[in-house]
Amino acid sequence: KKIFQIAILPGDGIGPEVVAEATRILEVVSAASTDVELKLETYDFGGCAIDKYGAPLTDETLKACQGADAILMGAIGGPKWGVNSKVRPEQGLLALRKALGLYANIRPANFASDSLLAHSPLKASVAQGVDIIVIRELIGGAYFGARKELGASPDEDAAWDTMIYSVPEVQRITRVAAQVALAANPPLPVHSIDKANVLASSRLWRKVATETLQSEFPQLKVDHHLVDSASMLIVSNPKKLNGVILTENLFGDILSDESSVIPGSLGLLPSASLAGAPSVADYTSPSFKPTPGLYEPIHGSAPDIAGRGIANPVGTILSVAMLLRYSLGMGKPAQAIEQAVRKVLDDKDIGGEGLRTADLGGASKTKDIGDKVVEIL
Amino acid sequence: KKIFQIAILPGDGIGPEVVAEATRILEVVSAASTDVELKLETYDFGGCAIDKYGAPLTDETLKACQGADAILMGAIGGPKWGVNSKVRPEQGLLALRKALGLYANIRPANFASDSLLAHSPLKASVAQGVDIIVIRELIGGAYFGARKELGASPDEDAAWDTMIYSVPEVQRITRVAAQVALAANPPLPVHSIDKANVLASSRLWRKVATETLQSEFPQLKVDHHLVDSASMLIVSNPKKLNGVILTENLFGDILSDESSVIPGSLGLLPSASLAGAPSVADYTSPSFKPTPGLYEPIHGSAPDIAGRGIANPVGTILSVAMLLRYSLGMGKPAQAIEQAVRKVLDDKDIGGEGLRTADLGGASKTKDIGDKVVEIL
Ligand SMILES: CC(C)[C@H](C(=O)O)[C@@H](O)C(=O)O
Ligand SMILES: CC(C)[C@H](C(=O)O)[C@@H](O)C(=O)O
Repeated sequence: KKIFQIAILPGDGIGPEVVAEATRILEVVSAASTDVELKLETYDFGGCAIDKYGAPLTDETLKACQGADAILMGAIGGPKWGVNSKVRPEQGLLALRKALGLYANIRPANFASDSLLAHSPLKASVAQGVDIIVIRELIGGAYFGARKELGASPDEDAAWDTMIYSVPEVQRITRVAAQVALAANPPLPVHSIDKANVLASSRLWRKVATETLQSEFPQLKVDHHLVDSASMLIVSNPKKLNGVILTENLFGDILSDESSVIPGSLGLLPSASLAGAPSVADYTSPSFKPTPGLYEPIHGSAPDIAGRGIANPVGTILSVAMLLRYSLGMGKPAQAIEQAVRKVLDDKDIGGEGLRTADLGGASKTKDIGDKVVEIL
Repeated sequence: KKIFQIAILPGDGIGPEVVAEATRILEVVSAASTDVELKLETYDFGGCAIDKYGAPLTDETLKACQGADAILMGAIGGPKWGVNSKVRPEQGLLALRKALGLYANIRPANFASDSLLAHSPLKASVAQGVDIIVIRELIGGAYFGARKELGASPDEDAAWDTMIYSVPEVQRITRVAAQVALAANPPLPVHSIDKANVLASSRLWRKVATETLQSEFPQLKVDHHLVDSASMLIVSNPKKLNGVILTENLFGDILSDESSVIPGSLGLLPSASLAGAPSVADYTSPSFKPTPGLYEPIHGSAPDIAGRGIANPVGTILSVAMLLRYSLGMGKPAQAIEQAVRKVLDDKDIGGEGLRTADLGGASKTKDIGDKVVEIL
């Protein structure tokens, strides 16, 4: 039997609740497979680790993550460890991304079910058919460049950060975007976003992205947008950006969050952070090369509703699907999970179950959704 | 008679067409006043200046702008002077902002008329009542920090920009935001936007903005949002950000453009870039202190429709209202212009004229709008 190790980081707030449903799905997949076994192991991470050990990312958790084939995370943070605390949960997340070399953040924004269209803040005519995959560079740019805090010398009165990119950093993330675009049939267009009319790092970005795509992936359609213009388009006509959005860390942070509200609830959306281009081959194929990755729903720890069993687990369950597909080469169960989720969300009149958690105005519990997905699987 | 000098920079594309209507309004205001005379003088700026003189901002134009009480601009740029040209129109704009010390960019996003609600990409329930004024720091941050291009030594393989802010830079823009908030009755809430969980420059921003507002404007309501979270809110529930958004240059570029599509057409919105807190006193008052400023619609030069007389001049006409109010202390004619524009845009069933240019699906010409505003004034 092929054994895959999966590190589970439930985190804070609603994290443990949504992760509980997602691990049930992993267990079902493991039990149903005749030749794969998924070994799940849970670790402290985030605010709960600060409370226990004084640090959001302990050596033990880091080692476990380094040794795992994939990581499933819930959510971290909360008012207890706010912006003014010295040690904060997100420092652990940034450190984990960097330590594992998770340079490629993949965030789809689409409608898991057409029945959700009414929940979009956009008009149905604008929102219908939106299908964007944001590929954000995750361990470069202003997040990890040199910086100086207020009060440090020289120039105590000022503070700065450096938005820095090198040629190889842009090449590798461009290749991830191209691979994701090519995994669709027909291949998706690539929209590269920068601020090349002002920033030197963006001029490098545009040049390297253009050259890499032209020379290595001439079959792909490519265009370029300035970040200000892209931020307009995501509201006014997001379908123009259907396909793959390729962008740097800070712009990706802003634009992926902006796109993510189109489907109506943050609770619905998954994400992957990978240390390489995602595997396309099945794990049974000799060309399968596992790509380590961290998978998490895009929503936060929602302390206001934590402990009540009403959080939406769909984003975490869909993160499991991404985990199976990208890190374990298990495309078939991944697709089955996505189809089951669609069925759970589809309204009854189109053959679905029409379940809705509180974020979508419904009364279903976290566990109801998990139960139904397991039942359908 | 009090004489105000106004430099007019029509620019490129539809710039001259929309500016033509706006200058007619300025002439009407001048003619109607018994004690103010507006002297208008036109100068080359942008792509047209590159074609004539090889530079977007000539010494003559710069001197004229420095000597003027206010500047009215149309739009600059076009495919002729694209991203790969060595000399580009927007370099002139950045240089002009810097040379004149225009550190405060003010961009309202609201519905000039309720009749336009149907043109928003957002659902009416989400869009109705949106009334946001973005105050963007305009001559600091990554736009003007030290940078290194790809190919320059050391580290030829990398390029970088510096997001840098000093305490006084953040203090002065915070004061502008506070003044604008206080000019409304009751005062508007201030929403300061940063990325303090990651960036040192944002931590400085949050600290200085907080302290300045607390100590100098304790009567104002203030909150803080991370830029990723703000970019979501502008789509999902923009009314939560009603009031004044205060933010740094690059975030302001992105968020002001994002907000600006809510009212349905970029052609509708004005902007001001000021070298100080806007004047609130009337020019007749002894406390009147003129603030030099550059005023322009937020839309671009739209080369695709240039020369056809169909561009929407409303953004430029409303920029004239801002110019009169903020740089010349003429609040009354400013308000009259805003009311006239509202009437022109209001549907007939609520007592308006219901005029619509092509951007709003109508057949009115640029001049029709100008004619009607002049007629109502
Ligand atoms: C928590 C924060 C540091 C993080 C980021 O900015 O990357 C978050 O917003 C995200 O997008 O995962
Ligand atoms: C043209 C460009 C340099 C400019 C900017 O980024 O500031 C524009 O987008 C704006 O917002 O006025």
